[in-house]
Amino acid sequence: MTKKLWGSRFPKKTHILTERFTSSIAYDQRLARYDILGSIAHAKMLGRQRIIKGDEAALLVKGLNSLLTDLKAGKLKIDLKSEDIHSFIQNLLKKRIGGVADKLHTGRSRNDQIALDIRMYIKEEINNLTELLTQLQRSVLRFAIDNKGIIIPGYTHLQRAQCVLLSHLLLAYIEALERDKERLQDARERIDFMPLGSCAFSGTSLPLDRGFVCRQLGFKAATTNSIDSVADRDFIIEVVADLAIISVHLSRIAEDLILWSTQEFNFIDIDFSFCTGSSIMPHKKNPDVLELIRGLSGRIQGDLSSLLVLLKGLPTSYNRDLQLDKPPLFDALDNVKESLEILAELFENIVVKKEAIASHLKDESLFTVDIVEYLIKKGVSYRQAHDIVGRMVKDCLDKGKRISELSVGELKRFSPFLDLEIKHFLDPGVSVELKRSLGGTSPQLVAGRIDYWRRRLK
Amino acid sequence: MTKKLWGSRFPKKTHILTERFTSSIAYDQRLARYDILGSIAHAKMLGRQRIIKGDEAALLVKGLNSLLTDLKAGKLKIDLKSEDIHSFIQNLLKKRIGGVADKLHTGRSRNDQIALDIRMYIKEEINNLTELLTQLQRSVLRFAIDNKGIIIPGYTHLQRAQCVLLSHLLLAYIEALERDKERLQDARERIDFMPLGSCAFSGTSLPLDRGFVCRQLGFKAATTNSIDSVADRDFIIEVVADLAIISVHLSRIAEDLILWSTQEFNFIDIDFSFCTGSSIMPHKKNPDVLELIRGLSGRIQGDLSSLLVLLKGLPTSYNRDLQLDKPPLFDALDNVKESLEILAELFENIVVKKEAIASHLKDESLFTVDIVEYLIKKGVSYRQAHDIVGRMVKDCLDKGKRISELSVGELKRFSPFLDLEIKHFLDPGVSVELKRSLGGTSPQLVAGRIDYWRRRLK
Amino acid sequence: MTKKLWGSRFPKKTHILTERFTSSIAYDQRLARYDILGSIAHAKMLGRQRIIKGDEAALLVKGLNSLLTDLKAGKLKIDLKSEDIHSFIQNLLKKRIGGVADKLHTGRSRNDQIALDIRMYIKEEINNLTELLTQLQRSVLRFAIDNKGIIIPGYTHLQRAQCVLLSHLLLAYIEALERDKERLQDARERIDFMPLGSCAFSGTSLPLDRGFVCRQLGFKAATTNSIDSVADRDFIIEVVADLAIISVHLSRIAEDLILWSTQEFNFIDIDFSFCTGSSIMPHKKNPDVLELIRGLSGRIQGDLSSLLVLLKGLPTSYNRDLQLDKPPLFDALDNVKESLEILAELFENIVVKKEAIASHLKDESLFTVDIVEYLIKKGVSYRQAHDIVGRMVKDCLDKGKRISELSVGELKRFSPFLDLEIKHFLDPGVSVELKRSLGGTSPQLVAGRIDYWRRRLK
Amino acid sequence: MTKKLWGSRFPKKTHILTERFTSSIAYDQRLARYDILGSIAHAKMLGRQRIIKGDEAALLVKGLNSLLTDLKAGKLKIDLKSEDIHSFIQNLLKKRIGGVADKLHTGRSRNDQIALDIRMYIKEEINNLTELLTQLQRSVLRFAIDNKGIIIPGYTHLQRAQCVLLSHLLLAYIEALERDKERLQDARERIDFMPLGSCAFSGTSLPLDRGFVCRQLGFKAATTNSIDSVADRDFIIEVVADLAIISVHLSRIAEDLILWSTQEFNFIDIDFSFCTGSSIMPHKKNPDVLELIRGLSGRIQGDLSSLLVLLKGLPTSYNRDLQLDKPPLFDALDNVKESLEILAELFENIVVKKEAIASHLKDESLFTVDIVEYLIKKGVSYRQAHDIVGRMVKDCLDKGKRISELSVGELKRFSPFLDLEIKHFLDPGVSVELKRSLGGTSPQLVAGRIDYWRRRLK
Repeated sequence: MTKKLWGSRFPKKTHILTERFTSSIAYDQRLARYDILGSIAHAKMLGRQRIIKGDEAALLVKGLNSLLTDLKAGKLKIDLKSEDIHSFIQNLLKKRIGGVADKLHTGRSRNDQIALDIRMYIKEEINNLTELLTQLQRSVLRFAIDNKGIIIPGYTHLQRAQCVLLSHLLLAYIEALERDKERLQDARERIDFMPLGSCAFSGTSLPLDRGFVCRQLGFKAATTNSIDSVADRDFIIEVVADLAIISVHLSRIAEDLILWSTQEFNFIDIDFSFCTGSSIMPHKKNPDVLELIRGLSGRIQGDLSSLLVLLKGLPTSYNRDLQLDKPPLFDALDNVKESLEILAELFENIVVKKEAIASHLKDESLFTVDIVEYLIKKGVSYRQAHDIVGRMVKDCLDKGKRISELSVGELKRFSPFLDLEIKHFLDPGVSVELKRSLGGTSPQLVAGRIDYWRRRLK
Repeated sequence: MTKKLWGSRFPKKTHILTERFTSSIAYDQRLARYDILGSIAHAKMLGRQRIIKGDEAALLVKGLNSLLTDLKAGKLKIDLKSEDIHSFIQNLLKKRIGGVADKLHTGRSRNDQIALDIRMYIKEEINNLTELLTQLQRSVLRFAIDNKGIIIPGYTHLQRAQCVLLSHLLLAYIEALERDKERLQDARERIDFMPLGSCAFSGTSLPLDRGFVCRQLGFKAATTNSIDSVADRDFIIEVVADLAIISVHLSRIAEDLILWSTQEFNFIDIDFSFCTGSSIMPHKKNPDVLELIRGLSGRIQGDLSSLLVLLKGLPTSYNRDLQLDKPPLFDALDNVKESLEILAELFENIVVKKEAIASHLKDESLFTVDIVEYLIKKGVSYRQAHDIVGRMVKDCLDKGKRISELSVGELKRFSPFLDLEIKHFLDPGVSVELKRSLGGTSPQLVAGRIDYWRRRLK
Repeated sequence: MTKKLWGSRFPKKTHILTERFTSSIAYDQRLARYDILGSIAHAKMLGRQRIIKGDEAALLVKGLNSLLTDLKAGKLKIDLKSEDIHSFIQNLLKKRIGGVADKLHTGRSRNDQIALDIRMYIKEEINNLTELLTQLQRSVLRFAIDNKGIIIPGYTHLQRAQCVLLSHLLLAYIEALERDKERLQDARERIDFMPLGSCAFSGTSLPLDRGFVCRQLGFKAATTNSIDSVADRDFIIEVVADLAIISVHLSRIAEDLILWSTQEFNFIDIDFSFCTGSSIMPHKKNPDVLELIRGLSGRIQGDLSSLLVLLKGLPTSYNRDLQLDKPPLFDALDNVKESLEILAELFENIVVKKEAIASHLKDESLFTVDIVEYLIKKGVSYRQAHDIVGRMVKDCLDKGKRISELSVGELKRFSPFLDLEIKHFLDPGVSVELKRSLGGTSPQLVAGRIDYWRRRLK
Repeated sequence: MTKKLWGSRFPKKTHILTERFTSSIAYDQRLARYDILGSIAHAKMLGRQRIIKGDEAALLVKGLNSLLTDLKAGKLKIDLKSEDIHSFIQNLLKKRIGGVADKLHTGRSRNDQIALDIRMYIKEEINNLTELLTQLQRSVLRFAIDNKGIIIPGYTHLQRAQCVLLSHLLLAYIEALERDKERLQDARERIDFMPLGSCAFSGTSLPLDRGFVCRQLGFKAATTNSIDSVADRDFIIEVVADLAIISVHLSRIAEDLILWSTQEFNFIDIDFSFCTGSSIMPHKKNPDVLELIRGLSGRIQGDLSSLLVLLKGLPTSYNRDLQLDKPPLFDALDNVKESLEILAELFENIVVKKEAIASHLKDESLFTVDIVEYLIKKGVSYRQAHDIVGRMVKDCLDKGKRISELSVGELKRFSPFLDLEIKHFLDPGVSVELKRSLGGTSPQLVAGRIDYWRRRLK
């Protein structure tokens, strides 16, 4: 048991089970840097405002800086018997600089201190996430550029639908990841308020200069309601919800790649360095990294659930339950960051199997829409065109024939508007070339988007 | 069974179980208006682009407008045997204007159509939600103004902590609700892209003018990737996550009010018109509305879970699973809107019980921080001051004495810095007056914030 | 607004918003039958115990029976303006039999009444679910029997692993569904306690005979703690958790079938009557039913979340939040039942594509474990055997050779224990025949299990 | 990087990111004991079946036993660079006993090995949980016995309802915890099947004796389908669902105690050793332990979500996603166990504040039901009785009178059946004494239940 920041009215020691059960140092230690930085700004302010003496403030700052230096150098040994990171820093500071350390906690409480620490931490992590998302986008873009001309069968309902450029599908990933970044930036705007000086929850009679602390720590503004400042965990839920959406995106990308690397789809080959084998089947090469990325989306959703339940029905104030906001936050952040990092690397290690893909493209059902649209251009209504081609497809299936094998006569039986010209469309290159509507898969449009993203992600 | 938009290649009828299981008309009928509006814009564009003839387009628009008129007048009887709202509108249009209706579906698919409908719907619902949130804020603000001077014991850990103005706590609600509005606005920005014309997922060879449709429907821009356009449900998850945060806020406000209306807290009296009674205990008057608001936060969290699970691991394209995005979206929207509406009304129907509250304020432990800060201002370190007052509190409890009963001599035993002057602080009015740090609970600061919100919420 | 069961002390009417917000009749009407049955048993008991007169009891029972008759005949028009199903029945009864109806609510409250209704309802639904699960098992078993001899490539990590009998995999479904039934039966045991007569929460001074009511309604025993009786919703959570596990099973079965019906896997053909088409692509035949079953697992998980959040942190008693337990329960039950029913039907409408599957089985990597085990039987350690075959596989891949093309000399280069005999194993039939360990895929073992299930599911 | 159990066909090393991302040793190390025990049974069987030589088996067993001894002694240093616990044990064994270790993995895979380890682990943890639940029940029972005669106001909707014995409410906790134990026992029955020997998923050609292994390890039976054996994670979800229900119970008990320890309710005093203080308010004594127990229910719900999402839509086989089943399982188990342990201890450290409670009991509205039932016994219908007392209550409130102050004349105005006799009921002791219906709160009935539980929990 270490020295508490409270307890003078307590007639007896805390039970050892209580010590263990209430301690948060095992996880909040990762906030040490923000806790110290916040304390430095706070100490400076206390001095400036003459709440404590100038030399006391200077001593506090010096002591805190020494802790910071040690922390950066990896020399700050965290005492896991501490109640929390705040108590640990406070107690350690006292060991280093003596009794003046007792003045540091003037005009603040752990309630606003932890709110500050997490906000600073998340602001930084949003920057890290944004960078990782950008790296993944760049990696996907490079992959798209390297495989610019490759046409794949596109799927809806996992059934072959129409031809698309592989790069067009890859750009869909980049779009989704871009929204993820925007969402995080929006969240960051809402986090960027400085809560320190709200004290336990009501403010203080001490002449704090919260604006000064705010500027020192690089926040946009100070919070304007002391109760909200300690009770609010919106920003954590919002960020973890954003992470949940990211992880859903990653699970979908992973699913695509897992399907493509089956022997049945056979679109891609993932490098051995990103696969693992089987302890029993010597031939196996499994896409484990992708399966874990997919699986981790469950984890992040669990973290989000956990936070929402935590907050439900709590009185609007600080309650100890709030301490439990950190494990799911950290878990979600760590797992999403790791997933982003490894997925970016993995995209550099995929080979597209052109011939194997090409063999799938012989399936002429991929071109039915092109024939429908050909008929529409001739004045046939969409509905009739759909019917004509539908009957043609059915007939081919019934008779085991390919569309390309149909004679003019056979075609005409389905519609007088059909003729041999349609065989021109039974070609993947022609098919994608035709899709020139805004946002479509034509090579020219896709090239334009690739250029756009190349400039944007530079 | 009604006419399908597909099926010409299908050799047999759909099984009756399949009909029922796959039909979405029971819930997507609420999108009828957006579906028609989208179709009108689409038809106009088809005409302008000469994809269909001018008079055909005009006829389509006229027919669609007649549906719209009927819908607004409540005369559009939805056929629950339809597959979905799109098929229903399409089939009905054909009944009204004949074969030319078959040309409407040219250059689009249900995949992009539903994406359009939901986006239009959510944009409008965000406006509605924003208005409801503002109404609740206004209602809380009026309540705060009406009870401006009332001081209550503030709580942390549901234990009495320090005095605060009731209005200060109420302003904390307004802050939280303001963030809720911002979050929705940010989401709206991301929704404001027009997906129609992405067709099934690859774009089309028809010369659509997606920009025209976009402008007609009041969107910021058209989407730029046809696959992303039909596969993306981010905006639904994001909005439902925003609703989940709102519902957590409402559950916390409800919990406050439920506690305050217990006989034990006895802070407020909720009007009978917002309570219900017991079928067995004639004296009961229960805060059911608030309990249901609190309970509904579970519902919204369930809706959010449901959506995140739905999307997890789906291939990046349209899959039929996506149809199931609507029930949780609608459920969350309806319940949050109803909760907001009734809570705003309920706040107009609360009486604050001043005397009962005043009796709680006699608890002198509410003023310990004021004494600590008095000592700090005399140069005592925070830690020592905390210890001094802690020991004093303990001694009072042990001896069954009140702080106000301590003699100078008794005070001095705890610290030479203590004297009778501290009794000045054993007063709720003095106590809140002192909390003048930015965001604190002093009446002047709170009045400033009330003014701020009065202007802002006008 | 209809007549309330309370309100005599209420000086004013309930607000219209409160009426709407607190009413549960829209969903609890489905409990009407149980509510009436419970009331009949209660009325009989009141008469037997002389709490009311014998002829009063008789009149109550007669009136209730008339309601029951109407309900069964579909003639009981539910008034959606009622507060709940209990009030509706009570008020209707009074209309039919006059003032004596006012005696029915003696010695009970809506708190214990709803607890009774839901328990009766769930008990019946567990029977229904059990029957539906058995029907699905039977349907899968028939499908397994019809395709008894068919060998498919088995997968781990969605990569080809070893040959297995299709029927063996299907039996895995049956095992999982059997556990689902057991779980429901266990839950039923815990539900089978009769709560009526617990009144609001404390019991009553009236000389009820709860044992009589219990026997009348076919419960195992009466509950033994009146507070627990009205506060407990464990049984709902437990059943919905069981439904969530079922829906996970169904989602996995659906995923298997969706994969198998891709053009790439091409294992099966689902009948047109269980597929739908595309409004834009005439050739499409999509496995929508399966996608919806997969997607619905998100819904059930949301329902479970919703319930757990609802209960979290509620005081141990009746709180109005509990009213919200029903929508997620009903939603989960309905969707799981519908999914089970249609999936059972769908399994009757699948054709296995033997030749297409056979072509996959030419992949000789499916047999590596057989060669490893051949080596082990010759005394080679598992690890060496795994290495030998691993190097052989790598060499074949590098050189583009099949194992069956290797000469004795080539084989011996990997190990002296290898010889041409191993080519015997490059055969799907031999491979599955070999797997004779308990629970393995050998035809004889699988036939034994089929027999077992045939007898068990009769 | 440590030696892999696979990889002979792999032409290159695993990427360092892959190593880190796919490693599970950080968490699955807690399964070491079960992994070794399983291996010992497997090795013995291999020897008995002459799959390996007798002396090889003996050497394997000896080596494994030495690992077990070291593990128990806390001397087994886990190498965190290992891929998983299986690889770690395998590699360490080889270091100790040389090449024969390579024979251990014969006839099994990591897929069935991990299934075995978790099943063994959970079986043991269910025993631990059951013991902890029983301890909590005993602790609650002792508390109930120590405060047997104490009457408290009971609440519904958190509004005062009727008097109940505190011990009666406490017995409701014991009932709920008993169901928790039953649920775990039911789950244990379903877990008690031995999966080892299912190999990767298809069984093996080696002559394993799975029955022998099953008996050695104390399982009820061996699993009967090799695919189900490696794909099934039902038992983990089921157990975590059971833990979620337990945690909901604990959150409700915690909420009760938090409310009771407010200054407003003031029913109980929790010992200082189970509270913590405030770093800013010297007088604070907060029920942190209870708040954390309440908050942790969010965590367990998150763990459950995480698992359900993980499994959703996975093909029926082993997929690497399954590796992620362990962190939520372990997290849920640890947190529930800790919560149970500390709550049992905390109940030993609560003092009930009789006088404070008694002052609440002066509220005569607590006795309205007694008066209603008095009227019913006189032949008044329930509805009329409810009305009479309701009007009486209203009148008292309107006039600021207590029921006990009403004269005969005043009483008669509400009903001729009312007379001064009813004042007899305005007494907590009388009120609870009256509730003699089965399961009610009368002292005699409660004493009977206390006896029941005393015998049962012995």
